[in-house]
Amino acid sequence: MKALQYRTVGTPPEVVTVPDPEPGPGQVLLRVTAAGVCHSDIAVMSWPADQLPFPLPLTLGHEGVGTVAALGSGAEGFAVGDPVAVYGPWGCGACFMCAQGKENYCLRAAELGIRPPGLGAPGAIAEYMIVDSTRHLVPLGGLDPVRAVPLTDAGLTPYHAIKHSLPKLVPGSTAVVIGTGGLGHVAIQLLRAMTAARVVALDVTEEKLALARTVGAHDAVLSDAAAAATVREVTGGRGAEVVLDFVGAQPTVTAAGAMAAVEGDITIVGLGGGALPVGFGAVPYEVSVTSPYWGTRAELIEVLDLARTGAVDVHVETYGLDEAPEAYERLHAGRINGRAVILPNG
Amino acid sequence: MKALQYRTVGTPPEVVTVPDPEPGPGQVLLRVTAAGVCHSDIAVMSWPADQLPFPLPLTLGHEGVGTVAALGSGAEGFAVGDPVAVYGPWGCGACFMCAQGKENYCLRAAELGIRPPGLGAPGAIAEYMIVDSTRHLVPLGGLDPVRAVPLTDAGLTPYHAIKHSLPKLVPGSTAVVIGTGGLGHVAIQLLRAMTAARVVALDVTEEKLALARTVGAHDAVLSDAAAAATVREVTGGRGAEVVLDFVGAQPTVTAAGAMAAVEGDITIVGLGGGALPVGFGAVPYEVSVTSPYWGTRAELIEVLDLARTGAVDVHVETYGLDEAPEAYERLHAGRINGRAVILPNG
Amino acid sequence: MKALQYRTVGTPPEVVTVPDPEPGPGQVLLRVTAAGVCHSDIAVMSWPADQLPFPLPLTLGHEGVGTVAALGSGAEGFAVGDPVAVYGPWGCGACFMCAQGKENYCLRAAELGIRPPGLGAPGAIAEYMIVDSTRHLVPLGGLDPVRAVPLTDAGLTPYHAIKHSLPKLVPGSTAVVIGTGGLGHVAIQLLRAMTAARVVALDVTEEKLALARTVGAHDAVLSDAAAAATVREVTGGRGAEVVLDFVGAQPTVTAAGAMAAVEGDITIVGLGGGALPVGFGAVPYEVSVTSPYWGTRAELIEVLDLARTGAVDVHVETYGLDEAPEAYERLHAGRINGRAVILPNG
Amino acid sequence: MKALQYRTVGTPPEVVTVPDPEPGPGQVLLRVTAAGVCHSDIAVMSWPADQLPFPLPLTLGHEGVGTVAALGSGAEGFAVGDPVAVYGPWGCGACFMCAQGKENYCLRAAELGIRPPGLGAPGAIAEYMIVDSTRHLVPLGGLDPVRAVPLTDAGLTPYHAIKHSLPKLVPGSTAVVIGTGGLGHVAIQLLRAMTAARVVALDVTEEKLALARTVGAHDAVLSDAAAAATVREVTGGRGAEVVLDFVGAQPTVTAAGAMAAVEGDITIVGLGGGALPVGFGAVPYEVSVTSPYWGTRAELIEVLDLARTGAVDVHVETYGLDEAPEAYERLHAGRINGRAVILPNG
Repeated sequence: MKALQYRTVGTPPEVVTVPDPEPGPGQVLLRVTAAGVCHSDIAVMSWPADQLPFPLPLTLGHEGVGTVAALGSGAEGFAVGDPVAVYGPWGCGACFMCAQGKENYCLRAAELGIRPPGLGAPGAIAEYMIVDSTRHLVPLGGLDPVRAVPLTDAGLTPYHAIKHSLPKLVPGSTAVVIGTGGLGHVAIQLLRAMTAARVVALDVTEEKLALARTVGAHDAVLSDAAAAATVREVTGGRGAEVVLDFVGAQPTVTAAGAMAAVEGDITIVGLGGGALPVGFGAVPYEVSVTSPYWGTRAELIEVLDLARTGAVDVHVETYGLDEAPEAYERLHAGRINGRAVILPNG
Repeated sequence: MKALQYRTVGTPPEVVTVPDPEPGPGQVLLRVTAAGVCHSDIAVMSWPADQLPFPLPLTLGHEGVGTVAALGSGAEGFAVGDPVAVYGPWGCGACFMCAQGKENYCLRAAELGIRPPGLGAPGAIAEYMIVDSTRHLVPLGGLDPVRAVPLTDAGLTPYHAIKHSLPKLVPGSTAVVIGTGGLGHVAIQLLRAMTAARVVALDVTEEKLALARTVGAHDAVLSDAAAAATVREVTGGRGAEVVLDFVGAQPTVTAAGAMAAVEGDITIVGLGGGALPVGFGAVPYEVSVTSPYWGTRAELIEVLDLARTGAVDVHVETYGLDEAPEAYERLHAGRINGRAVILPNG
Repeated sequence: MKALQYRTVGTPPEVVTVPDPEPGPGQVLLRVTAAGVCHSDIAVMSWPADQLPFPLPLTLGHEGVGTVAALGSGAEGFAVGDPVAVYGPWGCGACFMCAQGKENYCLRAAELGIRPPGLGAPGAIAEYMIVDSTRHLVPLGGLDPVRAVPLTDAGLTPYHAIKHSLPKLVPGSTAVVIGTGGLGHVAIQLLRAMTAARVVALDVTEEKLALARTVGAHDAVLSDAAAAATVREVTGGRGAEVVLDFVGAQPTVTAAGAMAAVEGDITIVGLGGGALPVGFGAVPYEVSVTSPYWGTRAELIEVLDLARTGAVDVHVETYGLDEAPEAYERLHAGRINGRAVILPNG
Repeated sequence: MKALQYRTVGTPPEVVTVPDPEPGPGQVLLRVTAAGVCHSDIAVMSWPADQLPFPLPLTLGHEGVGTVAALGSGAEGFAVGDPVAVYGPWGCGACFMCAQGKENYCLRAAELGIRPPGLGAPGAIAEYMIVDSTRHLVPLGGLDPVRAVPLTDAGLTPYHAIKHSLPKLVPGSTAVVIGTGGLGHVAIQLLRAMTAARVVALDVTEEKLALARTVGAHDAVLSDAAAAATVREVTGGRGAEVVLDFVGAQPTVTAAGAMAAVEGDITIVGLGGGALPVGFGAVPYEVSVTSPYWGTRAELIEVLDLARTGAVDVHVETYGLDEAPEAYERLHAGRINGRAVILPNG
């Protein structure tokens, strides 16, 4: 079959032919319908060889949707032909974290050499992929595969951040979304669907702010040195109960600290390398600052359930498998509008 | 001043002239803008004399909105002219429950003889009313007093029930509202504004189901012997994660038990006299059945904040103070459309 | 190998020789070290044939501890020789409930024909047993198998009930344990180890009350018609914030309703057939009444972690496999002191 | 009456005679039984005049216990002679935070000029003090005033921090207490009484570690550069689910970041001026870092309830009012063993 592989450190990924995979015991073979292209792949491909946590070549793609093509021995509960989405942050399935479905925080993944598809295990940008267990499958249930596939990361990651803060998102509260790109423009929609909070979007261009308003932001504000003051002003001085930073650069995390309300949550999702110092007097009283990773199994089910209500609309551009390298090039150049999706069998 | 009083057990309330009240230390005098007429007043007026928990005459009205007319000595934080809503379930302010703002569950109210306005203390259906503490005032902040006044009970009570169940109202879940009258039609709107749950409304006439759909119910189902089966069907067999019963009669609580999902919440708000037996095997595993009373101080603030977003629209009919007895008559006869509101100074 | 089987409806279980089991893909073969004998087996064996939800013969035992004897193909993360406890309420592993580790509430178990070992699948009272997935194993980590095995049900079930109510078990609160037998005497120890609540034990004999005091109850009270009044008295009139009823008979659930505090939790664990009617005025405001089943995967890990601190001491009597029928006889006759444990290879 | 006042910036506090206070409407006059001496007073007295947020002279003492000497008009629910503790972080009583009893985070305190006793309002180190509202009183209920008075801050502050993290303090988890002085040695006792977590204490001298062990720490470790590695080791590599830093200096907050578990809580209570940078990769996944202030009204009630069980034993040294300046000198010199308590009427 054909697959998009990252083969040599420092060179772009390429479409190659690899042996057709076969599912081992408990595993599932998927015919991939759609696979997402993510910024974090580009980050990984920028790392030097000695920092790469897995061997090459690597088939890319940690967002995948497909149909069950074959079930390994002992794999039960799904049938050939079932359309499914793949939960990506695989864990051991048995430790204390996995026992709660928090496989993104598996306590034994490193020890056992378990890694997500596309980030160590063979990924979704291929005609077929192996999923290691039925517990990592979620029935698609009528969702359009192309629009659903980004939900497995670009949907799940903001969903997890929002779910963490739901008790603070009461009526009268304010949520700020910094960065209205792939994850941020989904976050705005999730916030509107799941809470009665006022949603304030911050980004650096009027075009992006226009998109933020289109997808539901009550206010859209330029992300500059005055943004924190603006947020304090529109909240009557209180600040925002929740700040979700999908950029994570030093200026945005600093602004987040300056605009948060007492007892607020600041969640730094973006990989921009910034860090917000927390100590007595450094941020408002009892502001909680945290930086999570991906989401839980149950949360992926909830995200797809939410999508089925029509509340989330991810902007996508589609590419054939042979065009996948170009999709990465365009993403790298900042020329993707929303999320690029590969159709390996399309 | 003029006030509507319940003066003699078994006779209708009447408009009488009473001395103008003056605020004592810490108290606040309100010029009442609007006061709500509630079914529970009718229930109270049906009790025999020996069950009445307070002496007569009693000025009615436990839903009140007004402007601050005078502040007793030591009453601070509000100014004459401020428009405010009254939090009704007064407590001692100091016990463990009151220390959390749960004055509706004050541990010392009975011992100290503290009762809500209109349910023991002089109520809101009068030109002026005394509020015993500034902590029972919530700034109206631009809300229309007439549409806001029912929120202090008909809004707060369902809000409290919903807030209790928010962790279960994840995307993919279902909330059933039984009874779409005064409280129920607000509950539907609250659920839609605060959650992504599917909302199923149950009532006994097509007219009421039409209202339920208008205010946002995804499904509206006749509340009959088949209703539980219908709810199971539309939820793919799982049942409803949350059932809010604003009727509380034996048939509705029985149906609630039959339509609840494993780990679901059944909240019986209605005073219909029904009771649902709970034990191993009697309801699905870990269904929680409870019957709360009114809501907390913070929740009233949240309800009014929510109303300011435009998410809640209470249907009201207005009456002058002299017409108040007629409003009660019409309510008793089931002829009020939504909520009757008295304008004592209108 | 030898196994204790329930073979014919209405006759006692007997020790028989059955083929040695072999683990299929993903499964694990355990050499059973210890297996618990539970009242619920006796309940199941009292059911008529047409109510039995599984075919006979059935190897009994839903509490099991053993060492890994063999791993089926694809079963990873454990090694031969590892001592493990078995999580009993197996589910599909993939549905919304299982994705949270709540396999006790699996949404697809019935559809897929999944049943717990000893309650449909071959159980632990045998020389060897098959566990269907490594995710149902918890490392014993130094615990004594004989004292640990009852924790998989008689520990996990009260632990789940207590965990549900932890937010209410603040300092100053009171927890009542009704029935201080197998589960109840563990519940008292769990409450003392995990909370600062006052623990009041109720049972029907002075001997049992003495045991309750020994394992940590602050008060031990005869479970009679006066018990509710006594609980109100020792709580200064408030009642108990949490009532755990391990009997579940009509008199005990009725007493539970009479002794609960406003906003309290009543959890009916016992299979005694009682049911507590809940409605407005039927129990104190916002008392939550529920009846759960067993516990979650993460909770079993927590229970074993707690046992490792020395906080829980289960009273056990041990029997060889050939004596297992006698252990059931004695349990049925009420002559077991604490928990009977079978040592199939002892 | 006599009072200890801070009168001139840069000079020590002195005992002076001031007019006897009289309670205004809603206020309460207390005859002070005991008042605590706190490090934060020393911090405040080190500030230059232009940073002082209140005018001088100031009667010191934000930890107070006394008996009700007189009730202002309208002050109800308490009687002359009642022994009470004072909740210190006064708020407006009516805003959204105060409505939940979180007066420590009052939204209007600054605007309305409300400050805690001893930190702006006249404090407890005097023969009498004014408490502005009965809602700031908690009945002592049999507690020894001298041992109870530190609980109003040195007890309440760690209690608040621990309560925030209770959901993470499951059996099997680890809590680290950095700094085992006034607040820290109470924190250890609270953790032992309220959770089954393993408690690891860190401090810089063997003498302090000995105290930590005496009050219940499972492990006591020197707080040096190797401490984080030690905590990882004793937790099997996972790290601590909760780290409470009562020092808050840069080395301790850095160590906290290095020893926290994935999804852990780091709470910085100490005023040591350190700050921990939080961003993706800067601390383990989803570690939440926060710095709270004091505690809520309900929490003070809970702390006193806990003390009544005998679970907390605060080490105190007592001084007469005339010796109060000496107590501050000794505290400043690090020569107080536990907590200094002034007996103004002793």
